[in-house]
Amino acid sequence: MTVTPDTSAAAPTPRSLLDFQGWSRAQLESLFETSKMMQEVLARPVKKVPALTGFTVATVFFEASTRTRLSFELAARRMSADVLSFSAATSSISKGETYKDTLLTLDAMGVDAYVIRVDAAGVCHQAERWLGKPIINAGDGWRAHPTQALLDAFTLLEALGSLEGKKIAIVGDILHSRVARSNAELLPRLGAEVVACGPATLLPGTLPGVQLSTDLKTGLTDADAVMVLRLQNERMDKGLLPSLPEYIAGYQVTQERLDWAKPGAPLLHPGPMNRDVELEGPLADSSRSLVERQVANGQAIRMAVLYHLLVGKKPRGES
Amino acid sequence: MTVTPDTSAAAPTPRSLLDFQGWSRAQLESLFETSKMMQEVLARPVKKVPALTGFTVATVFFEASTRTRLSFELAARRMSADVLSFSAATSSISKGETYKDTLLTLDAMGVDAYVIRVDAAGVCHQAERWLGKPIINAGDGWRAHPTQALLDAFTLLEALGSLEGKKIAIVGDILHSRVARSNAELLPRLGAEVVACGPATLLPGTLPGVQLSTDLKTGLTDADAVMVLRLQNERMDKGLLPSLPEYIAGYQVTQERLDWAKPGAPLLHPGPMNRDVELEGPLADSSRSLVERQVANGQAIRMAVLYHLLVGKKPRGES
Amino acid sequence: MTVTPDTSAAAPTPRSLLDFQGWSRAQLESLFETSKMMQEVLARPVKKVPALTGFTVATVFFEASTRTRLSFELAARRMSADVLSFSAATSSISKGETYKDTLLTLDAMGVDAYVIRVDAAGVCHQAERWLGKPIINAGDGWRAHPTQALLDAFTLLEALGSLEGKKIAIVGDILHSRVARSNAELLPRLGAEVVACGPATLLPGTLPGVQLSTDLKTGLTDADAVMVLRLQNERMDKGLLPSLPEYIAGYQVTQERLDWAKPGAPLLHPGPMNRDVELEGPLADSSRSLVERQVANGQAIRMAVLYHLLVGKKPRGES
Repeated sequence: MTVTPDTSAAAPTPRSLLDFQGWSRAQLESLFETSKMMQEVLARPVKKVPALTGFTVATVFFEASTRTRLSFELAARRMSADVLSFSAATSSISKGETYKDTLLTLDAMGVDAYVIRVDAAGVCHQAERWLGKPIINAGDGWRAHPTQALLDAFTLLEALGSLEGKKIAIVGDILHSRVARSNAELLPRLGAEVVACGPATLLPGTLPGVQLSTDLKTGLTDADAVMVLRLQNERMDKGLLPSLPEYIAGYQVTQERLDWAKPGAPLLHPGPMNRDVELEGPLADSSRSLVERQVANGQAIRMAVLYHLLVGKKPRGES
Repeated sequence: MTVTPDTSAAAPTPRSLLDFQGWSRAQLESLFETSKMMQEVLARPVKKVPALTGFTVATVFFEASTRTRLSFELAARRMSADVLSFSAATSSISKGETYKDTLLTLDAMGVDAYVIRVDAAGVCHQAERWLGKPIINAGDGWRAHPTQALLDAFTLLEALGSLEGKKIAIVGDILHSRVARSNAELLPRLGAEVVACGPATLLPGTLPGVQLSTDLKTGLTDADAVMVLRLQNERMDKGLLPSLPEYIAGYQVTQERLDWAKPGAPLLHPGPMNRDVELEGPLADSSRSLVERQVANGQAIRMAVLYHLLVGKKPRGES
Repeated sequence: MTVTPDTSAAAPTPRSLLDFQGWSRAQLESLFETSKMMQEVLARPVKKVPALTGFTVATVFFEASTRTRLSFELAARRMSADVLSFSAATSSISKGETYKDTLLTLDAMGVDAYVIRVDAAGVCHQAERWLGKPIINAGDGWRAHPTQALLDAFTLLEALGSLEGKKIAIVGDILHSRVARSNAELLPRLGAEVVACGPATLLPGTLPGVQLSTDLKTGLTDADAVMVLRLQNERMDKGLLPSLPEYIAGYQVTQERLDWAKPGAPLLHPGPMNRDVELEGPLADSSRSLVERQVANGQAIRMAVLYHLLVGKKPRGES
């Protein structure tokens, strides 16, 4: 499914959010505007709207992820949708049923949209073809995790006003990170300059639109914001260079190193954090950290995405 | 609890759905009529009715079954019931509590109806005595799975108009199948002639009201519809004759063999399917297959059953 | 957080229910009055009120407990709250995230109140400081399980009219029981005299406000009610004296021994019961047993607690 990116505000919202292909800047901005409305809902004592009453949202997790699942399910329920929560742990997949049969079975129960997490990149795209319904990719292998990138971008927009010409540093295991890849796809589209920074063995060969660097100082210098990724200890244990102490020596984001960035440059992290591994513990609790703001904005973003895909919110300027 | 079957339309709906004892043809037809109304609800964008607001439906699964559980819970929520979802995996049963104490404890929380899956046939009947509340048997051992048979019958009625004098072939492991047993109990009551077909080691000695055959051709010839059962590979592995290749050679439903049946005879399967074991893979995706329709009708049937048992829908002809 | 107990009706409800510190008798009585209103709701066919629409209640269980979790979640939903159900089994805690980070992440999704079960006493108190939101302790180690004590007291009040001057015997493993500790804190505050009774190795050195005894006859004689605790077999297996047969010989509550208590003295048990261990099997099903009444009252109590903490119910006499 190749969709030519369309930058006119009149283009309809794409059917799904698999990655950012087919999402124009105008459509993304329309989504952020809806997210701001959702923030207002979330600031009320009664954090609930009837927008999706009678709609059924299925969360289909072939790979465990408590936080992401809870965030989507709460977002759906806060718009009064019914939630069908399926996880592979107790499922028929272990009885040899295929992804396709599992999804077609759930679909026959009457599902209006899917939130899918699966290790195998490509299942989400196929799911859209099999089901003909809106699919939200909640993380597929190393490739994409678009709602995480949207909430990162939304949080950066709140902090910086605009991303036009801003330098965003992403630090850590870039190679295995779907968060890095989705941000690398999204942030330049909003005008940002992205530098991805990590040890050579944890960098991909290239990342389109993004500058790669093995030098942390190059990455952080004059950055408007710093996004620190979770270091998957289990990878380090498997003999991948560098060792954990070497990683910490070279790439841990510390107060001192953060001073290379612009004054007051905020710090983001997709969570869960390894305190004192990828970043100095106290930084996580400092006023520079937007970590909780990211989680809070995740609610607003996911409510907005569900709303746009299910109710077909038109971009600005349309009647 | 022996209930004399009553065929008058004026008999009240039985309290529970444990099997089809006590359910007259008129009551079953009333249930199918309600199911048609539920289909109309499910065809709307807003697939939700307030019929069971404030009622609490407990799903109590002493044996794992994601699909059946999800189907019941979604059906209950779509009628606005609250759902109390209990599974034995994380329960007190492992602390030595009895079935009875577990059910009495849940009941004390204020439950209006129970959906119970349990390996031990008989627990559902006892539960009705212990609790005095409507019980829906969601599968007990090899004995019964009545909502599966109801959705099968409802799907057959849609496809064939009536079951009067129609020949329905059930193919596979009849011996260990509660789906086969429940269909063998239900379909003849609706006027159908049922032939159950499989290798000798997978057939029971007798099945009241049903013709048994070890010859697939006898079973399929002139059948108006073919129901294929899931072959539990794990049984085959345990040295049960026939071996898997022998089973496939003798009993796999293929396109060629399906031609023994009446032209266009539809194909049913309770899922999850083992493609290329009990049936030829492409048949599952052909227009002959009603597999997804069965799952969809499962929603309508389960909504109707909950409604009849909880709100006490009167059969046709009553005021 | 040291709060001076306040006995005036005008004192506001404490923010949290961690234990009974800070809860005056007037506040407790106000809670019981609300619980009576909730009982009326639960007696209706439509057991649901819109009181907490749009509020989000998180149940955060770092230790498994199906019954307690279901009871709280049903109570929350019956007041129309949204429930965010988090359990550590599938959580990031296993990825090395701290309790604090886990709670802050959930909190950022927009939670209004927490129900927390955790093995480590103290986490609930810290949670209140970290989050600044109402916390309900759903059982922390050996220390406290206040809603269990509240439902016990409420059930005793129903049975005995008043607790003033009444003798309540608690029998079993007092040392490891948070239920015993919470009742020891609550019941004397309502005027009761509490005797805790068990073998020497299962008694604490002291329990403020409570008389300890190793002699069952002393404990039961003239008791107005008897609360039997669950014996954790696994402790007995670990070589703790007495052995299981010795425990049964000395401390099992039998029909004969129950006759030492006042005529008709009711029997309570927090469940799940080990029939024929801590009490004679038939007693559990006799009319003396209030076990199911306790579970039912658990709904009313938990609805009342959530309502008081979230909506800020004022004690009697306030305008």
